[in-house]
Amino acid sequence: MMEASSVGIVRPFTEVFDEPLSLACGHVLDHYELAVETYGELNTNKHNAVLICHALSGNHHAAGRYEATDKNPGWWDLLIGPGKPIDTRRFFVVAVNNLGGCHGSTGPLSVNPDTGRLWGPDFPPVQVTDWVEAQRRLGERLGIEQWAAVIGGSLGGMQALQWAVEYPSNLRHCVALAAAPKLTAQNIAFNEIARQAILTDPEWHEGHYTTQQAIPSRGLALARMVGHLTYMSADGMSDKFGRELREGSFQTDAEQEVVFQVESYLRYQGGQFSTRFDANTYVLMTRALDYFDMASAFRGDLTAAVGAIEARCLLIAFSSDWRFSPTRSREIVDALLCAGKCPTYAEIETDGGHDAFLLDDTYYIELFAAWMRQVDV
Amino acid sequence: MMEASSVGIVRPFTEVFDEPLSLACGHVLDHYELAVETYGELNTNKHNAVLICHALSGNHHAAGRYEATDKNPGWWDLLIGPGKPIDTRRFFVVAVNNLGGCHGSTGPLSVNPDTGRLWGPDFPPVQVTDWVEAQRRLGERLGIEQWAAVIGGSLGGMQALQWAVEYPSNLRHCVALAAAPKLTAQNIAFNEIARQAILTDPEWHEGHYTTQQAIPSRGLALARMVGHLTYMSADGMSDKFGRELREGSFQTDAEQEVVFQVESYLRYQGGQFSTRFDANTYVLMTRALDYFDMASAFRGDLTAAVGAIEARCLLIAFSSDWRFSPTRSREIVDALLCAGKCPTYAEIETDGGHDAFLLDDTYYIELFAAWMRQVDV
Repeated sequence: MMEASSVGIVRPFTEVFDEPLSLACGHVLDHYELAVETYGELNTNKHNAVLICHALSGNHHAAGRYEATDKNPGWWDLLIGPGKPIDTRRFFVVAVNNLGGCHGSTGPLSVNPDTGRLWGPDFPPVQVTDWVEAQRRLGERLGIEQWAAVIGGSLGGMQALQWAVEYPSNLRHCVALAAAPKLTAQNIAFNEIARQAILTDPEWHEGHYTTQQAIPSRGLALARMVGHLTYMSADGMSDKFGRELREGSFQTDAEQEVVFQVESYLRYQGGQFSTRFDANTYVLMTRALDYFDMASAFRGDLTAAVGAIEARCLLIAFSSDWRFSPTRSREIVDALLCAGKCPTYAEIETDGGHDAFLLDDTYYIELFAAWMRQVDV
Repeated sequence: MMEASSVGIVRPFTEVFDEPLSLACGHVLDHYELAVETYGELNTNKHNAVLICHALSGNHHAAGRYEATDKNPGWWDLLIGPGKPIDTRRFFVVAVNNLGGCHGSTGPLSVNPDTGRLWGPDFPPVQVTDWVEAQRRLGERLGIEQWAAVIGGSLGGMQALQWAVEYPSNLRHCVALAAAPKLTAQNIAFNEIARQAILTDPEWHEGHYTTQQAIPSRGLALARMVGHLTYMSADGMSDKFGRELREGSFQTDAEQEVVFQVESYLRYQGGQFSTRFDANTYVLMTRALDYFDMASAFRGDLTAAVGAIEARCLLIAFSSDWRFSPTRSREIVDALLCAGKCPTYAEIETDGGHDAFLLDDTYYIELFAAWMRQVDV
């Protein structure tokens, strides 16, 4: 049974676009499709639309369930629904699977019209700016000229920030959680290890694994293990796993059996992920993350980059997030302040690490809800 | 040409042991060999011997060169030599490749006398306590009853600490750099990802790769990339690589060519390592690291564990080391203080990360040298 605060049963739909989209890499997509979900109702003045941007492994299924018996709801069900921070009694919420994704939008699993075969590794390397443009067209299609808010965490937060920089008058509020103005060398290095895990899997076949009836599932599982580990905090892991032994013994056998709980947890997470995600999309998404730089069109000057922003900005960072630490959010806050804006910044004390933006924390949720209540609709 | 502060040309030698060694796992090694190097001269009262314990990927070649034309000297040449902190004009320095190693000591690359074939993955899972016992016997063989100091960094520091706990009267000084009393769940998780990279490589062959004329080099390279990345600090990487592009362009081609400098650096490091290290040894060494717990024989009570220590202890930690952070060294310092000991603790400000114990830093080296000068010989 659904709880009262759930958006309930939801249905994804697909929007088809035939107006050519020029990507940052130079490639032109003549035709593309976007998988979408919406929750709540667009009001008559079309003033209450909120766009949800997803992170590395997310998609358009942000809230609700497809069947009442679904084990898990959408990935941000904690935050989206009646009475929740992104309150569907007030807001019309739009969630989209980004271009290059693997859950319904045009991407590596789609047919390349030039060859009649799957795009696979040849899908053009999309960037955050491409996603923003595709999302802008989706808004137009839905009759939305100005978003009440564009909201996202991690890579999703970067899209929200890019929206504010690039289309200042098309959004009134921008919420970026656990984000950064660009990646550090360490960030890029973690992504590179994830990619190498996939690219060196013999089942990778230069990315043409589907035509070889193969799946680089070991590489993808390993990539996910690396990612997942870096999204948790050291303290959070200690609290969750400590040094608990799965077998109750320090001995290992000749088959190198699992001995610590944290090992079996990571293997399970990695294994699960490899059954529900496409390896080419994972490579593509990590590249988009690496390439992102809010200030790249402003010769690296972040204050100049945010100079045109009209949206009221909320930046939320999490104390134990070492992948995109509070310091990185404060770089954006400082640039906004230097540019004469009035950003709101909140740093949440948590041991949830980078993943904290997806987790239940009373203070975080109440703060987020309070801020969203002052968004006019 | 060798600089004056070098130990010069060195020769490794092998010590053969036929007295059975009972390992912590229950296995008994009837015969084993240890690869050793020594620098300096043992004085007449045999009072000036210093034992160097190596870390995960180290060995007995700690200083000097085998040929004058060798590109690189031993791994701790910066610290060992005439006039250096571990001054070979005063000390007789002994460096040993640990049991299970792949550079001359008995390990996975040795023949299992029971089968006549290489041990490979069946080499017993050695632990830090086993290494200490093997080192103790090596000391006996060399006529050393009491070490002036036992010294090591990282996993080597754990051996030095285990020495002090287990054989209080057999060493007068204990120096542990960038160490910890035991690993955290996060530490274990990073090791597990490294192991999974090796174990899921199709060339692994359940560890019997040598008999299959195979080498799991991709997995080993990936494992090293994970390790290497975690030994560097985020700031250090930013200073070294920033977001510099190798190709001067944000574009990637269909072959997923390297774009960021940090990527090509990591790939190079990983590739190099996979040609000079044995995968079974890497798995075994990471397991020994995971299993280490100074207080395991004392029901987890660290203060009780250090209670019997007679050696004067120097703990050095490095500010940007997030793999074994200063907090972990201070746990040991606090336990020593609670037990009524007088430990010396130094925290070095550096962006060198965990690897800082191997790096040139004036303050670190002078501090280390000053402390070693008060060691009587």
